[in-house]
Amino acid sequence: MEKAEIGLIGLGTMGSNLALNIAEKGHRIAVFNRTPEKTDAFVANAGTLRDRLVPCKSLAELAEAIRPPRPVIIMVLAGQPVDDQIAALRGELAANDIIIDAGNANFHDTVRRFKELEGSGLTFIGMGVSGGEEGARHGPSIMVGGTEASWKRVEKVITAISAKFKGEPCAAWLGPDGAGHFVKTIHNGIEYADMQMIAEIYGVLRDGLGMGPKEIAPVFAGWNKGRLDSYLIEITAKALEADDPKTGRPVVDIILDRAGQKGTGKWSVIEAQQLGIPATAIEAAVAARVLSSLKSEREAAEKAYGKLSVTTFSGARDEVLKDLELALLAGKIAAYAQGFAVMSGASKEFNWNLPMPTIARIWRAGCIIRSQMLDTMAEAFGKGGAEVNLLMAPAFIDMMKQAHPSLRRVVARAAEAGLPVPALSSALAYFDAYRQGRGTSNLIQAQRDFFGAHGFERIDAAGAFHGPWGGTQG
Amino acid sequence: MEKAEIGLIGLGTMGSNLALNIAEKGHRIAVFNRTPEKTDAFVANAGTLRDRLVPCKSLAELAEAIRPPRPVIIMVLAGQPVDDQIAALRGELAANDIIIDAGNANFHDTVRRFKELEGSGLTFIGMGVSGGEEGARHGPSIMVGGTEASWKRVEKVITAISAKFKGEPCAAWLGPDGAGHFVKTIHNGIEYADMQMIAEIYGVLRDGLGMGPKEIAPVFAGWNKGRLDSYLIEITAKALEADDPKTGRPVVDIILDRAGQKGTGKWSVIEAQQLGIPATAIEAAVAARVLSSLKSEREAAEKAYGKLSVTTFSGARDEVLKDLELALLAGKIAAYAQGFAVMSGASKEFNWNLPMPTIARIWRAGCIIRSQMLDTMAEAFGKGGAEVNLLMAPAFIDMMKQAHPSLRRVVARAAEAGLPVPALSSALAYFDAYRQGRGTSNLIQAQRDFFGAHGFERIDAAGAFHGPWGGTQG
Repeated sequence: MEKAEIGLIGLGTMGSNLALNIAEKGHRIAVFNRTPEKTDAFVANAGTLRDRLVPCKSLAELAEAIRPPRPVIIMVLAGQPVDDQIAALRGELAANDIIIDAGNANFHDTVRRFKELEGSGLTFIGMGVSGGEEGARHGPSIMVGGTEASWKRVEKVITAISAKFKGEPCAAWLGPDGAGHFVKTIHNGIEYADMQMIAEIYGVLRDGLGMGPKEIAPVFAGWNKGRLDSYLIEITAKALEADDPKTGRPVVDIILDRAGQKGTGKWSVIEAQQLGIPATAIEAAVAARVLSSLKSEREAAEKAYGKLSVTTFSGARDEVLKDLELALLAGKIAAYAQGFAVMSGASKEFNWNLPMPTIARIWRAGCIIRSQMLDTMAEAFGKGGAEVNLLMAPAFIDMMKQAHPSLRRVVARAAEAGLPVPALSSALAYFDAYRQGRGTSNLIQAQRDFFGAHGFERIDAAGAFHGPWGGTQG
Repeated sequence: MEKAEIGLIGLGTMGSNLALNIAEKGHRIAVFNRTPEKTDAFVANAGTLRDRLVPCKSLAELAEAIRPPRPVIIMVLAGQPVDDQIAALRGELAANDIIIDAGNANFHDTVRRFKELEGSGLTFIGMGVSGGEEGARHGPSIMVGGTEASWKRVEKVITAISAKFKGEPCAAWLGPDGAGHFVKTIHNGIEYADMQMIAEIYGVLRDGLGMGPKEIAPVFAGWNKGRLDSYLIEITAKALEADDPKTGRPVVDIILDRAGQKGTGKWSVIEAQQLGIPATAIEAAVAARVLSSLKSEREAAEKAYGKLSVTTFSGARDEVLKDLELALLAGKIAAYAQGFAVMSGASKEFNWNLPMPTIARIWRAGCIIRSQMLDTMAEAFGKGGAEVNLLMAPAFIDMMKQAHPSLRRVVARAAEAGLPVPALSSALAYFDAYRQGRGTSNLIQAQRDFFGAHGFERIDAAGAFHGPWGGTQG
């Protein structure tokens, strides 16, 4: 029998969809699930793709079915199950075989697993996959970390199943060991910020302008035809249009305002902190989800403080809507600037040499944050400026110059109205601190030297100095 | 010869000052430094305190000099030197002796060291000391983590050397193993936020109102007589008054706006993230220091974007100054609310049972963030509300009700003026999200269910539900 091109372990929704995607692109794939019945059912229901699926009842059978060097995708729950699966698989594989973790791993685990497999002859790929269930089935964005040789072995299959942006595959090898999972983590962090900013603008429309979901939906739908064109804006419009079958009310009105999270936002913030790179818009988004979960506390606080009466968003609605659109644009640019800066910091810290334009390119389709703007970002890299900070790329300087006055007005009005805009205001503060040649941390240095003799630099001489605070400290 | 009450290793500035403090309070103390000459010089220069200092040339001599069970304070550089010192000391000590790390340790290290000593018969105390050099010499705030028995052995000395607030010692046993160093870390995180907010207000005064240091100094000095009364406001006023001997200019004007940091702010943010507690004002402060360090990038960005002309702070100066004072008050309350919430989260996570009123009490004097307001906080705990969130304590509800309109106006005007106020705006957004009964994360839940089938809760029924998104996804 013809050998399979690749193997896959774990036939949950994501694993099944990836396997079908691979088969559909013309590749034979050997599949295994802990429960053999699940494997049988999966293959039985695969329709015309059935012929390209090789059901395996054991890991030995799986290994036997794949053309060496054997790439085996693991799609199980992140954490210990991945380690267990690697341990079980090791004995069945041979030199140069490749274990691929396609789950949402913390990149530190990926680096560890890569190291643990070194010397065994096997190698490891950490593969970030974005696009949800539908993406896995029809074309996700795929971020690969591992050796270049192992990438060469799987490149054909991986690029075949990935999303395409104007024909270009949204899959790439980004660097060694944890590079792929790291980039996926930051992708998710940016996704948090993107979603939060949309929710903040929705809040202004709802509470500041008193608009209902059916009025707000076309606003987002309209923006989706402009520079905000993106999957998240598109589904926001659609979600706002949808009605709840049970009550007939708009679905968003019956959804509890308590958001969940699975950890990648938090990881983004922690890694940014470890690297010493500001990621305040992502942090604000993570914090907003946490605060959302404190529903009863919030209700008690609203009773204690009372509702603010919102009047600051009155005025010509068209102008306000234009401001909101541009505010979202400016906020989004700042959030992406932070995300790319974090990746740039990691690239230096871990010697990954991450290809920023490639990252922007493979995010243009397939993944949750896909958007037209990522195409502009992909173009911006390599033209100067963007390598320092996205805010310094000429195309984004132009956009920000046009959009930041709107972001100011929206943040200002929301602040006065009592409408929380944590991510947008963080984005504005980041932009304003970044574009301020002479900041205010001279005062902080004075304080630190005053109480802790930490020393400061001068504007007119090199070296470390102390202030004439005399015996006044303490 | 009479045995010493305690020992101390490491006669750098902090260690020397702590030793002199201990001796001054009437306790014999055995001292050791790696370089014996330093020990001799230290004792020779100790004046009348000389008689209470027992110089030791070896760790064996040090151990011999102390009354068992022997407490030995280690005051060396954080990190590996602490582990090295513990290893060297272990052989010289006996059952029930106590090694006390008084440096700025990461509490994870403290927990590890505590565990490593378990079973050896020795025990470990992680002791956070705040107050800088002067505090160490004349009365710091001291946060102790370890066993209660080990605390009982050192309580007399530690409370004697600590700062006093109206006669009450600013030292306390806060809980097991890492509790003291954790609380010290959050103390420093709050300190970051406090300093950053002061710097932001200084920026508004300088760039928004065009005031020079000598005009700004009396403003802070005046606030220091009101509810903002605190050490940081006091030294801010003094630092703004000071002149540079070299140029005759105000010192703050010749200090480079590039702030340093030593890690405790970052640790605070990372622990807050790990615990899932928002600490956005602290995060904003850490980010501001990082951005301050990018001096040349900021100068390039200012060229690219141009300076904004600030006009929004015109108007009656007295009113603006009153707003700035109240904005700082409101921002500070929110930042402290976050800090206490993080400690509360850690207390639950690690089963520490941290005594919040005690923490507020021992911060009232000696440490860098000492202030009158901490007395109000100490009183607030135990009266209801504060245990949930400081923003829910009646005294702080009153203050916030009075102050938040000013915080809104300041954040709004700064946003429009292009003056970065990252910590103040984060504090406002935190407050506004916290006091919003119906937030906007219903939309985020809709998005998450749309693209990832994550499910959502309903406002009208228990359980997990999916939206009627149909085949529209992906």
